[in-house]
Amino acid sequence: MYTLIDGKKTSAEIREEIRREVAEIRRQGGKAPHLAAILVGHDGASETYVAAKEKACREVGFDSTVIRLEEDVTQEELLDHVRHINEDPAVDGLIVQLPLPAHLDEQQVIETIRPEKDVDGFHPVNVGRMTIGLPAFISATPAGILELLRRYKVETGGKHCVVIGRSNIVGKPVSILLSRKEEPGNCTVTLCHSRTHDLTAFTRQADIIIAALGKARFLTGEMVKEGVTVIDVGITRVRSDKTRSGWKLYGDVDFETVAPKSRFITPVPGGVGPMTIVSLLRNTLLSAQKVIYP
Amino acid sequence: MYTLIDGKKTSAEIREEIRREVAEIRRQGGKAPHLAAILVGHDGASETYVAAKEKACREVGFDSTVIRLEEDVTQEELLDHVRHINEDPAVDGLIVQLPLPAHLDEQQVIETIRPEKDVDGFHPVNVGRMTIGLPAFISATPAGILELLRRYKVETGGKHCVVIGRSNIVGKPVSILLSRKEEPGNCTVTLCHSRTHDLTAFTRQADIIIAALGKARFLTGEMVKEGVTVIDVGITRVRSDKTRSGWKLYGDVDFETVAPKSRFITPVPGGVGPMTIVSLLRNTLLSAQKVIYP
Repeated sequence: MYTLIDGKKTSAEIREEIRREVAEIRRQGGKAPHLAAILVGHDGASETYVAAKEKACREVGFDSTVIRLEEDVTQEELLDHVRHINEDPAVDGLIVQLPLPAHLDEQQVIETIRPEKDVDGFHPVNVGRMTIGLPAFISATPAGILELLRRYKVETGGKHCVVIGRSNIVGKPVSILLSRKEEPGNCTVTLCHSRTHDLTAFTRQADIIIAALGKARFLTGEMVKEGVTVIDVGITRVRSDKTRSGWKLYGDVDFETVAPKSRFITPVPGGVGPMTIVSLLRNTLLSAQKVIYP
Repeated sequence: MYTLIDGKKTSAEIREEIRREVAEIRRQGGKAPHLAAILVGHDGASETYVAAKEKACREVGFDSTVIRLEEDVTQEELLDHVRHINEDPAVDGLIVQLPLPAHLDEQQVIETIRPEKDVDGFHPVNVGRMTIGLPAFISATPAGILELLRRYKVETGGKHCVVIGRSNIVGKPVSILLSRKEEPGNCTVTLCHSRTHDLTAFTRQADIIIAALGKARFLTGEMVKEGVTVIDVGITRVRSDKTRSGWKLYGDVDFETVAPKSRFITPVPGGVGPMTIVSLLRNTLLSAQKVIYP
């Protein structure tokens, strides 16, 4: 029988831990961690994400600021806002909600954020420090995956982990993190992607599978071995006549056939997803405490 | 019958290409690329490496400067030299020969070098940019390995590459580079290390093996499949009564048993080793031409 890795429950526990830490900081006369977000334009999904981050900040006792800029903001105006927050000692963490409108240069914006406030962990300095094994802000999804493995005491040392998908925000960093000499970590990691021949030959050997390719119900029961641990990062909206909304969310894993062979498995929704915001909160707290960059 | 990947010959060809490029730059009134090296103390191996780099610079027409500092230099003095060269528009590339004496903080020295002059590719910004897939200075050994694969037209796309060793200077970066959507690249990469269970099960599946663990003649014929391509990064000095010096150099690969099963294989010495200095020259040329950081 498998153990369901409950990201919703775990993230609630971590929020509560952070809330208590913040209360303790305040009690000792310290200031609350402060997260600033820049939101450009009125994209529906981006509005939703930023609102969720604001709400999460409020719940744990963080200060938060949202800077709303119009769709037609210039690159230079946007960079000025970033630079202003870089210099503001009251702000511990800064995120710029992506994607940006097409006329803006995302990479330049990311590289303008001071690494010490880059709680999204997208700045090359943080990616490089993570790769080398130095203290760094780890981006939300990989950090959330590691935290789930840690909290559910999934044994990783010496295990064969197959990562499917080589994106900069999930596959690549998680493959680097899990091969490090750390706990969780010390995995033999195989990074698979669209050019991999005979993917099933790899997934069938895996003790741990991180599915992050973005294809609904791609990984099926016959592709995995008994006792596998499966972390499902995918989230795809599929039309459905069985729900009131007319849509249903699917992960990259065909839960019905994979779960019976699994030791641990995450559901979608309610697995990795809820962990991303707490990773961001955690990074902001670490920034306020000057843990990563003393 | 295997093809020997001749690093000595390849590196000589590349030096000649660089020499011609420099001559052309000079002919058009441009200035020669300029590499500066800082050498602290009098470690024999470090002296040898720096001398070899100076000689290589001379041969291709680069300017070169070596700043020699005494063993007891302070961190602040060393950083001042780095900062001075950072600001010197005449210098395109700066390397600090490692290892440094124990009282000095290597990581701080590396991070003080401007990424735009970090031709060793050790600065977190360059490591991060490499990881994300942005233009970056790639460190010498991984760059040399990629260049050998490129020049010998070793097919990498869709191949399974097993990297043995997770060091920051070889195993980790080469695993990242070979999994990128590039040519050479697009490999399914498995990164193995000291904590890997049943390493032979992995090496026997590999189309390409990068051996970088530092154990003389570790990889033997029975650990590889027919037709494998083997890149041997190791170099270990072993006592021998068969040489005049009393020493013999061995790679991580047991050449006698692995070569007969190989399609391509590098010798030691004369494989990856000679490629490292040309990678450094190439980076210095790219810096002078402002190719990586326009």
